[in-house]
Amino acid sequence: MNQEELVNKITREVLKRLQEAGGSASGGAATSVSPAGGKAPSDAGRGGDAGATPEVLTGAELAGYIDHTLLKPEAGEEEINTLCDEAKEHAFFSVCVNSSWVSHCARRLQGSDVKVCAVVGFPLGAMAGRAKNFETRHAVEDGAREIDMVINVGALKSRKLKVVEEDIRWVRRACPRNVILKVIIEAALLSDEEKVIACQLAKNAGADFVKTSTGFSHHGATVKDVKLMRRTVGPKMGVKAAGGVRSFADALEMIASGATRIGTSSGIKIISGEVADSAY
Amino acid sequence: MNQEELVNKITREVLKRLQEAGGSASGGAATSVSPAGGKAPSDAGRGGDAGATPEVLTGAELAGYIDHTLLKPEAGEEEINTLCDEAKEHAFFSVCVNSSWVSHCARRLQGSDVKVCAVVGFPLGAMAGRAKNFETRHAVEDGAREIDMVINVGALKSRKLKVVEEDIRWVRRACPRNVILKVIIEAALLSDEEKVIACQLAKNAGADFVKTSTGFSHHGATVKDVKLMRRTVGPKMGVKAAGGVRSFADALEMIASGATRIGTSSGIKIISGEVADSAY
Repeated sequence: MNQEELVNKITREVLKRLQEAGGSASGGAATSVSPAGGKAPSDAGRGGDAGATPEVLTGAELAGYIDHTLLKPEAGEEEINTLCDEAKEHAFFSVCVNSSWVSHCARRLQGSDVKVCAVVGFPLGAMAGRAKNFETRHAVEDGAREIDMVINVGALKSRKLKVVEEDIRWVRRACPRNVILKVIIEAALLSDEEKVIACQLAKNAGADFVKTSTGFSHHGATVKDVKLMRRTVGPKMGVKAAGGVRSFADALEMIASGATRIGTSSGIKIISGEVADSAY
Repeated sequence: MNQEELVNKITREVLKRLQEAGGSASGGAATSVSPAGGKAPSDAGRGGDAGATPEVLTGAELAGYIDHTLLKPEAGEEEINTLCDEAKEHAFFSVCVNSSWVSHCARRLQGSDVKVCAVVGFPLGAMAGRAKNFETRHAVEDGAREIDMVINVGALKSRKLKVVEEDIRWVRRACPRNVILKVIIEAALLSDEEKVIACQLAKNAGADFVKTSTGFSHHGATVKDVKLMRRTVGPKMGVKAAGGVRSFADALEMIASGATRIGTSSGIKIISGEVADSAY
């Protein structure tokens, strides 16, 4: 059985089990979530365990799940500085920025617990794999401790699954063991079957997280997608819900659905209980 | 006088002259355009001479101005193949694709006159300069004969002009002499002053073209911006109008305003005299 047949088989199996579990592809994951106990923000690092999700979090606890994000191209130094300072003040997990800002953020965050997360091949994912590898390598050199890469969506659409997996492996090879790799599947562009395949390939290639969205496509994270992704990757890998998370309630629902990290530009409003109007 | 002061002086001067010439920043360029004669498609290569723009072009002549473009991330192999075959059939100047597709397109176009144009640091431009250098180098190795890079808009917004220029130089250094470098300023995000500065920096850094837009921001090329860019870079450098060019009339207006290349995904409709409904 070649890789393509194997993945097709796994996909059919996963979709079948999802159908059995919840009556639809979106069902199931939430039922396995335990309502008990608090979750230390540090658990959010290497994927975490989706089974330990609490029913209620404080704002300060929720902050530890958040990648404080600023990816719009026109963001200047002042906005990036504010992002870093806010992340320190509110103890967000990381700042998530484009690769040209990594060294600046690493300097600004020196001595704090806030990590620098760099996006790679972003937001189209259609950059050559070896270019993603180079961008990753130098982002890590510049101080990135997390890498959020975008898959090659066009290769997935063409069912060139080896190309998709090898593209992820190009990036994984550029990440030392202590660097977290998140793989953005850009769910808005994929069928449910393609979402499952993308998650399987990310897992095969050694990624730490799968991530729903770039925030630059038709829509961001949905509860349905987070459940499907959690179900596909199992309880040990991380799932990051990014894009469209605008309120405390949204964030809790994502976490209850299996997310172990939230990507948002509205972190401060979210942890303060306000509702943001931003699309990311 | 340091570089920043110099550019500010140039900018003030250019804006002042524009005011004198046309009563507003958008005026002037069209008045210098000669209505005479045809323009051979091959002239469109290294920038061309904006003064030689004809009043009327045939569809076949217009095709020689067009970069036949497919940049959406979900484009698969079949669509990319169609793009290449259409470009050969209609004798478009190039196909413009993401860097993961360059070697595929180069093979498919072998033996034809259609060039492969690769986008770099696309569409945000916020990737590190050395990563743009690497992406360019390998796109050229893979067969790209033109590179369309995006400037670091955030650095420009922060008035870090040396960073913006050095970023372009990173890419220029990766382009052999026979490879055309186009610099996308993403005009939709810039003030008129910033547009002028961006064009000046691109010229300083040795680019062959300035280009209006990625097609992924708030809007694409406007006549006003093409005139401003043409006026800023002078008659010898290329100006590419990209995004929002939907009809034969649109394309002619862009060329009359100073454009020497058109980036569009609607090339076939345009040269056939139809109006496209695509945003790019």
